[in-house]
Amino acid sequence: MKFEIVHTSKKSRARVGKIHTPHGIIHTPSFVAVGTNAAIKALDSVAVNSLELDLLFCNTYHLLIQPGPKVIKEAGGLHKFMKRSRPIITDSGGFQVFSLAYGSVASELKSQGMKKSSGTVLKITEEGVTFRSYRDGKKILLTPENSVETQKDLGADIIIPLDELPPYHISKTALKESLDRTHRWEIRSLETHLANPKEQAMYAVVHGGIDPAMREESLSFLRKHPFDGFSIGGSLGKTRDEMAIMLDRLTPLLPPDKPNHLLGIADLPSLNRLIPFGIDTFDSSYPTKAARHGVLLTKSGPLKIVKETNASNYEAPDPTCSCTTCQNYSLAYLNHLFRANELVGLQLATVHNLAFMVNFMQEMREDILNDKV
Amino acid sequence: MKFEIVHTSKKSRARVGKIHTPHGIIHTPSFVAVGTNAAIKALDSVAVNSLELDLLFCNTYHLLIQPGPKVIKEAGGLHKFMKRSRPIITDSGGFQVFSLAYGSVASELKSQGMKKSSGTVLKITEEGVTFRSYRDGKKILLTPENSVETQKDLGADIIIPLDELPPYHISKTALKESLDRTHRWEIRSLETHLANPKEQAMYAVVHGGIDPAMREESLSFLRKHPFDGFSIGGSLGKTRDEMAIMLDRLTPLLPPDKPNHLLGIADLPSLNRLIPFGIDTFDSSYPTKAARHGVLLTKSGPLKIVKETNASNYEAPDPTCSCTTCQNYSLAYLNHLFRANELVGLQLATVHNLAFMVNFMQEMREDILNDKV
Repeated sequence: MKFEIVHTSKKSRARVGKIHTPHGIIHTPSFVAVGTNAAIKALDSVAVNSLELDLLFCNTYHLLIQPGPKVIKEAGGLHKFMKRSRPIITDSGGFQVFSLAYGSVASELKSQGMKKSSGTVLKITEEGVTFRSYRDGKKILLTPENSVETQKDLGADIIIPLDELPPYHISKTALKESLDRTHRWEIRSLETHLANPKEQAMYAVVHGGIDPAMREESLSFLRKHPFDGFSIGGSLGKTRDEMAIMLDRLTPLLPPDKPNHLLGIADLPSLNRLIPFGIDTFDSSYPTKAARHGVLLTKSGPLKIVKETNASNYEAPDPTCSCTTCQNYSLAYLNHLFRANELVGLQLATVHNLAFMVNFMQEMREDILNDKV
Repeated sequence: MKFEIVHTSKKSRARVGKIHTPHGIIHTPSFVAVGTNAAIKALDSVAVNSLELDLLFCNTYHLLIQPGPKVIKEAGGLHKFMKRSRPIITDSGGFQVFSLAYGSVASELKSQGMKKSSGTVLKITEEGVTFRSYRDGKKILLTPENSVETQKDLGADIIIPLDELPPYHISKTALKESLDRTHRWEIRSLETHLANPKEQAMYAVVHGGIDPAMREESLSFLRKHPFDGFSIGGSLGKTRDEMAIMLDRLTPLLPPDKPNHLLGIADLPSLNRLIPFGIDTFDSSYPTKAARHGVLLTKSGPLKIVKETNASNYEAPDPTCSCTTCQNYSLAYLNHLFRANELVGLQLATVHNLAFMVNFMQEMREDILNDKV
């Protein structure tokens, strides 16, 4: 992997870059779509390949359980298995193990109370985390070593070390304990990776919760190790403001010559707020999830497909958009498909929202190149 | 509409023909896919247009209720609304009104006992049939006149007069009463149609249940009227044998210079059995429904996607097939998508099954041209 900075804005720390990977270039800042089970929900890979979606996020936790790394390895790796031609990033599996245990991450990270553990995390030890498969109840021990081995079998362009996702509500002592263990896990992950790099790049995960000192400690520790990039994980605060304050403080400490990634956040207000800090890639299932809930992203705000007045709107859903949905179908037809519970409505809305994100990021890169952001 | 017979087999009554419509040619014998709600389930029209699927069946009953004929008319008709470039056929709405009332048509027609009326049919009078909308419980009166007017608004290439679908278990007297009323409804439908033909063709529906004399009576009555084609509806027997015996007897009585259609039957064994009788078009939701249930049609029989051994089969689902699914994805990937409940699996399986049917019919036409069928 090679990272090239094309331009840094004169107006902010925002930067335009190119991450060169074995499966092509990721133009940054870039939106990263989520394809948990080696598929973007409701969209086939051939259709996805025709969007200029540079990077796709697949979840090791899900793929470990179904179909299992052996199948994907035998198929020739994730790209071949799912017929994706462009770059892929996988996580360690840790995020899902912990977030499924602590309940909805979004609600928990935003401190709307910690849900009772669903009992899927059975034990956290120095060795790793033991959890129960949601599929067949089988006990699985996820360690830094086997997480990375699994990610080797999957063969994504970018992989992530095993980390612990501490809940938002945690004492300082417990947070420090978790952070130190996460660091030890990340180093073991890195060692496993470096023993057999396989043209993959590994991004560290910066932790430390909402404690600025621990965040800085985490970053300064991880910087000392030969990670190819740096991702930022865990809770960053209750509100977008708290998150922005934390990231404004943290991002200048990132190694400027290495790509960085913000895990799990890519809503439009956050992107507008955070891109000026020089964050390169952002993943989120928000655009695809919104599509399945009948919400189209547009420049004039979210558009609710089933709204009564849309039933007789024969214009394109977003007349400014050049995606295949907006080029071929009317809002009235989409309204009808959603009201009639036709599956294809989910597909058409997903195409639009992903095209919207790709376009949003293209314009953002233009604006950075012109020092407008 | 113009019907051209290209070749009649020397071996059977099977024939290859071309039905010229305002939206292109239907090559017969042809499989007609079902797109009830102005959409083939799980597949968008642009993808469907790329298949050589000459004719699509949409259901007036469903479209009457959602989005309503006004919306489709204002959108410029069904073709424009759903972005279909090739021919469409709509039914009268009667079939669904009655079949929803009598329970599953398949099970009822096959005489697996008549289900209790779900109460959706409220009244059958000379004027028409009153039923309750499944959507909002509103009473709707469907008459020959308003069914045809609705089909005028939809603007399909081929439309169907209002008919009554009598249950399989019915006395001879009741069947005769139903048949006579159906004939009166069909004539009123035809008159409404001919007052404003709008480049649409109307196919009569031959009824008479499993009574051969009444079937012949129906056909001889309907032949006297200027219908553009003849479809065969209602129950034809409990078994495929009974159906074949009835159709073997009935089809020689059809006007040979007009196209005919068998309503609701297009499974492979039936096609093999019935095409030699000279039936031109067949509609069925079987291939698309099978796809959504994880069954692929292949020349060596149905293939169950989730079968254990398919999890590690890295070949195309059907190596003899040139559809985009078989050209791009492995059986292992499809197996994974179905096991992981990924929606896109339904789409990929549907593409294959429709392509299979198109190909099956192409080969059938070749065989007829070569007098092999």
